[in-house]
Amino acid sequence: MNLVKVAVVGASGYSGQELIRILMRHPGVDLVCVTSRQLAGKTIAEAYPRFQHHRFSSVKFTASDAAGVVASGAKVAILALPHGLAHEYAQPLLEGGLRVIDLSADFRIKDPAVFQEFYGEAHPAPGLLAQSVYGLPEIYRDQIRTSNLVASAGCYPTSILLPLIPLLRAHLIAPASIAVASMSGVSGAGRKVASDYLFCECNESARAYGVPKHRHLSEIEQELSTAAGIPVVISFTPHLIPVNRGIVSTIYANLLPGVSAADITAALEGAYQNEPFVRLQGVTGSADIKNVTHTNYIDITWRHDPRTGRVVLMSAEDNLVKGASGQAVQSLNLMCGWPETEGL
Amino acid sequence: MNLVKVAVVGASGYSGQELIRILMRHPGVDLVCVTSRQLAGKTIAEAYPRFQHHRFSSVKFTASDAAGVVASGAKVAILALPHGLAHEYAQPLLEGGLRVIDLSADFRIKDPAVFQEFYGEAHPAPGLLAQSVYGLPEIYRDQIRTSNLVASAGCYPTSILLPLIPLLRAHLIAPASIAVASMSGVSGAGRKVASDYLFCECNESARAYGVPKHRHLSEIEQELSTAAGIPVVISFTPHLIPVNRGIVSTIYANLLPGVSAADITAALEGAYQNEPFVRLQGVTGSADIKNVTHTNYIDITWRHDPRTGRVVLMSAEDNLVKGASGQAVQSLNLMCGWPETEGL
Amino acid sequence: MNLVKVAVVGASGYSGQELIRILMRHPGVDLVCVTSRQLAGKTIAEAYPRFQHHRFSSVKFTASDAAGVVASGAKVAILALPHGLAHEYAQPLLEGGLRVIDLSADFRIKDPAVFQEFYGEAHPAPGLLAQSVYGLPEIYRDQIRTSNLVASAGCYPTSILLPLIPLLRAHLIAPASIAVASMSGVSGAGRKVASDYLFCECNESARAYGVPKHRHLSEIEQELSTAAGIPVVISFTPHLIPVNRGIVSTIYANLLPGVSAADITAALEGAYQNEPFVRLQGVTGSADIKNVTHTNYIDITWRHDPRTGRVVLMSAEDNLVKGASGQAVQSLNLMCGWPETEGL
Amino acid sequence: MNLVKVAVVGASGYSGQELIRILMRHPGVDLVCVTSRQLAGKTIAEAYPRFQHHRFSSVKFTASDAAGVVASGAKVAILALPHGLAHEYAQPLLEGGLRVIDLSADFRIKDPAVFQEFYGEAHPAPGLLAQSVYGLPEIYRDQIRTSNLVASAGCYPTSILLPLIPLLRAHLIAPASIAVASMSGVSGAGRKVASDYLFCECNESARAYGVPKHRHLSEIEQELSTAAGIPVVISFTPHLIPVNRGIVSTIYANLLPGVSAADITAALEGAYQNEPFVRLQGVTGSADIKNVTHTNYIDITWRHDPRTGRVVLMSAEDNLVKGASGQAVQSLNLMCGWPETEGL
Repeated sequence: MNLVKVAVVGASGYSGQELIRILMRHPGVDLVCVTSRQLAGKTIAEAYPRFQHHRFSSVKFTASDAAGVVASGAKVAILALPHGLAHEYAQPLLEGGLRVIDLSADFRIKDPAVFQEFYGEAHPAPGLLAQSVYGLPEIYRDQIRTSNLVASAGCYPTSILLPLIPLLRAHLIAPASIAVASMSGVSGAGRKVASDYLFCECNESARAYGVPKHRHLSEIEQELSTAAGIPVVISFTPHLIPVNRGIVSTIYANLLPGVSAADITAALEGAYQNEPFVRLQGVTGSADIKNVTHTNYIDITWRHDPRTGRVVLMSAEDNLVKGASGQAVQSLNLMCGWPETEGL
Repeated sequence: MNLVKVAVVGASGYSGQELIRILMRHPGVDLVCVTSRQLAGKTIAEAYPRFQHHRFSSVKFTASDAAGVVASGAKVAILALPHGLAHEYAQPLLEGGLRVIDLSADFRIKDPAVFQEFYGEAHPAPGLLAQSVYGLPEIYRDQIRTSNLVASAGCYPTSILLPLIPLLRAHLIAPASIAVASMSGVSGAGRKVASDYLFCECNESARAYGVPKHRHLSEIEQELSTAAGIPVVISFTPHLIPVNRGIVSTIYANLLPGVSAADITAALEGAYQNEPFVRLQGVTGSADIKNVTHTNYIDITWRHDPRTGRVVLMSAEDNLVKGASGQAVQSLNLMCGWPETEGL
Repeated sequence: MNLVKVAVVGASGYSGQELIRILMRHPGVDLVCVTSRQLAGKTIAEAYPRFQHHRFSSVKFTASDAAGVVASGAKVAILALPHGLAHEYAQPLLEGGLRVIDLSADFRIKDPAVFQEFYGEAHPAPGLLAQSVYGLPEIYRDQIRTSNLVASAGCYPTSILLPLIPLLRAHLIAPASIAVASMSGVSGAGRKVASDYLFCECNESARAYGVPKHRHLSEIEQELSTAAGIPVVISFTPHLIPVNRGIVSTIYANLLPGVSAADITAALEGAYQNEPFVRLQGVTGSADIKNVTHTNYIDITWRHDPRTGRVVLMSAEDNLVKGASGQAVQSLNLMCGWPETEGL
Repeated sequence: MNLVKVAVVGASGYSGQELIRILMRHPGVDLVCVTSRQLAGKTIAEAYPRFQHHRFSSVKFTASDAAGVVASGAKVAILALPHGLAHEYAQPLLEGGLRVIDLSADFRIKDPAVFQEFYGEAHPAPGLLAQSVYGLPEIYRDQIRTSNLVASAGCYPTSILLPLIPLLRAHLIAPASIAVASMSGVSGAGRKVASDYLFCECNESARAYGVPKHRHLSEIEQELSTAAGIPVVISFTPHLIPVNRGIVSTIYANLLPGVSAADITAALEGAYQNEPFVRLQGVTGSADIKNVTHTNYIDITWRHDPRTGRVVLMSAEDNLVKGASGQAVQSLNLMCGWPETEGL
């Protein structure tokens, strides 16, 4: 396997840390550049004691700007920056000939007006929106292979889109009936040092937040609408629960007239039975965070409820892996022509 | 305050333990009898080291049957037995002149056919069903005062009924649109010694269970139907999350045509603004387990979502207090003519 | 009971919050002043949703300086400030005629040189050191009753001193052999917003810190030396574990020649059998955080190890209650002539 | 790499589960047999949903006795049975030509009298004791390579022996002064279904247990005595803390006269600087569970305390990996002539 030079930009958060963990074990990657203003000057081992005694442990964080990343010789840059900063790097990196995978939401929304509605400001680089591919490999595999700018799908969106897209494509459920409750581990909030995320504020706690219009709704509805062929608007309530990692999403939708439980099962099996990272648990299984943490799998199970005419879909994934860094590496594998599961 | 002699029957689970904790501090209660086959012969202090150095610490558990409880002189018996056993005590205790508060589901369902549908067997004492009062003081306060058999409301039901009943009574929401996701701490499963509830199976885990037809639906739908004046069938998905105590319920419902956000607020404030244990957090507040644990409060907050035409209601309570033992003592206070908040 | 006007200075941390919780239920207290620069202008209910619907919920935080506290009419001020700030309030409050209970370490050390050694700076008000009483009621009960300045004992020190003092006073153990390992919940670090105390950094983590010369050693050794009648130097390693509250201390000491297991038991029982907040669990019991959280109890158990000639003492307390705010209220009760257990 | 046929006997506990996880990724292993009476008939994927979609997922658990394991063609059997059962398999497996790695304590003690003292019964196969090698690769690497019966070191013992053995061998510390406090995650108790290990009994709890004579002392003292050249008796107190995995051990020992802090550092660096799985964190680092979970590393850090003349050693490991299954695979690698880090 020919090594590909990779840079990680903004590697001080939990997604960046997880990305380093995965890349350290990836046989195709030569990690030539990791940047973080906060950690600049430290080696990876010094910044993260957990990563001592690994390949790349002695790579040093730099405070490089885009030019510095280009100068590192990297052919692919993965951006793990806070939302709103990615365009400062993406544009010059693309111009410098790098391919870019962005973990933030900055390039996920196709319509600048939707971006403005949900993020409260004009998109700083609308030209890149047209160019980017939504980084959900199960849905956009072919486009990702050849893309130079992949906007890796968000954590909540991944957990909601994968169960729903096959059902909407097959016109099995009523789009307007969709309602979702998701529970996320605290790493989903990033490594933000704020009192809300202190141990004693999260432990023995559970709470909804961002109701009723969480920013992730914009990309969820964009992709559901594409699948349904009509505009879809849904209800979505995220909750914070005291686990480090993992998202469980529980999704309600009304079956359209004449649709049977077997149709639901057939649509999901048709879509995913050969997918390496989607594990269908059928109508009796479970979607439990503990079965997917530290893996790139998403587990999906479902139940038909004849009393209400609804289907209940439940998914579980690791928000830092399938919901962020693992999914980005899945795209990286596609872009580099490697087996999609390499290093995952 | 004249002391009332109270017996706790089946006090080895978490609800029984919490009941003892509350009664130890209740100025109106003389705890004359605590029963548990498993703990018989031990004092409360020996069985629960946490309860050393308290009033009643030296009361001994007995393996008493109903006759033994009657012989203890108790005027009120609170049953904290596993589901299905309460009728063995309730009938003879009532005949012995005691008033009974039952924490199980055994007397909550009015219609024996519904009981059979959800519990899989014929109700063993259908005569008592007619006589019992559903123990949700905010709704049945007057009937509880004079009742001899109170079927204290369940933990999930309390968290769902209190937010929804005022909206259904006022015809503000579409009954068929109701969908609920609830998250419960592990004590909700009782003190059952099963591998599913081991620390390592629950910690760093979150999962739905009992989908799509959890037993609690029977009492939830019974009470919602009464409030709505028509039969109501809903979706309800409980989840197990790694906290000791607490339930958060997130509830979706479609507003009926012409209903405004202000109508929702008015209905909830009209119903609860003077309730001692319902804390309305309005349209900007939060319903967080950590604000209600170890208290008899239920916190309720809500949001109107004009995009979907839904209201999102969120509630938080301690499943062992407002969801079980605290609520039972609230009924006890009503039955004894004490201030409703006494000892809570 | 005549109400005593009480002020809480610096009530935005976990100790301050716990203090408010206790004082809200204390029948002798009129809470006339709570200060916090950070929370100034908010009511207690607004700052802490948990404390809605309680007596004093509508008391407003102020940014008062000492003069403002004096002006509030308070007769007793409890200081819950970060270490190093207490003297700015204590001096003028004492001059203003108030009695002061300080939760910080600022007035615990009698010898200014020891203070300087452990805290790295000269004591700002050495005159107050002589005047203060070490606030460990089981040891200094009589002095506390009449004191105007109580330096309430620290959390780790309380858990270590109470088991050891009777054994040192009776000359049963070798002072130089003492070695302690303590485990503390994360609230012990206060509500400091630092990345070390984020949920994901503490959950699924356990680590020693402050080795080998934690600041609390200064007061621990001061009090052990007083008990032993000779200078005592010990080993002490605190650990952070993922619980909200609670400290477990495990203490090793060599028995002096001729000392038996029964002598240890006799010394502890002689010292504590009538103490309201010390629960001796004997030689077969357990000292478990879960039995003491949210209470002012300290549980102590011990084992003689004939193989090594050592005694192993284990204690458990709630760091925020017996280790901080509960203990302060215990002193308050003594100072006001109330029953020592009032409100606890 | 030539595949070696491996059997796992008794794979229903946490160690067995972790062993399967590691072997699934091990390029040299052909997993031909997994036994468990409880899981017999299920595939690995069915028994452990976490292990779906992996190599060996469809291997079925059998209820095989030793003959069945021999018949499977396995060349190496790893026993993950509860203590006391290993000899029933070990003897016939060895006679059948297999090499055996045992995770239990059954073959760790060389002296049958010591076994009887600590385990309360005569050793059932004393002949095998002489033949077995103590499975701590850093200490017995050469013997393990050629052994047919490796008694893999215990979790607590590993965390205590690795820091202490170099210091005892170099005569730097006083053996009689050693005192240890260890904290273990709940998986250390195995997957035993007992009320003590229920989520609500362990969460928000911390407690010592097995004081003062935990069974693991027998193997700890055996190996410390070998290192010191004289009989060593120590104090050891294990604690249960609410994490899934991980052990932290904090160890006190008095320096012998003339020994300096630098001598301690030199001894540890001399012993371990080239060890692949021992990460020395020096005199300023940390030993935190969160840095070693899911890895085969043990982190060791230390401090000299001139005030007491002691050294404080702190270690952290994953009890299921370096403390059990990872260590067993480390031995397997040695026995098969593979790189010691293969698959780890």
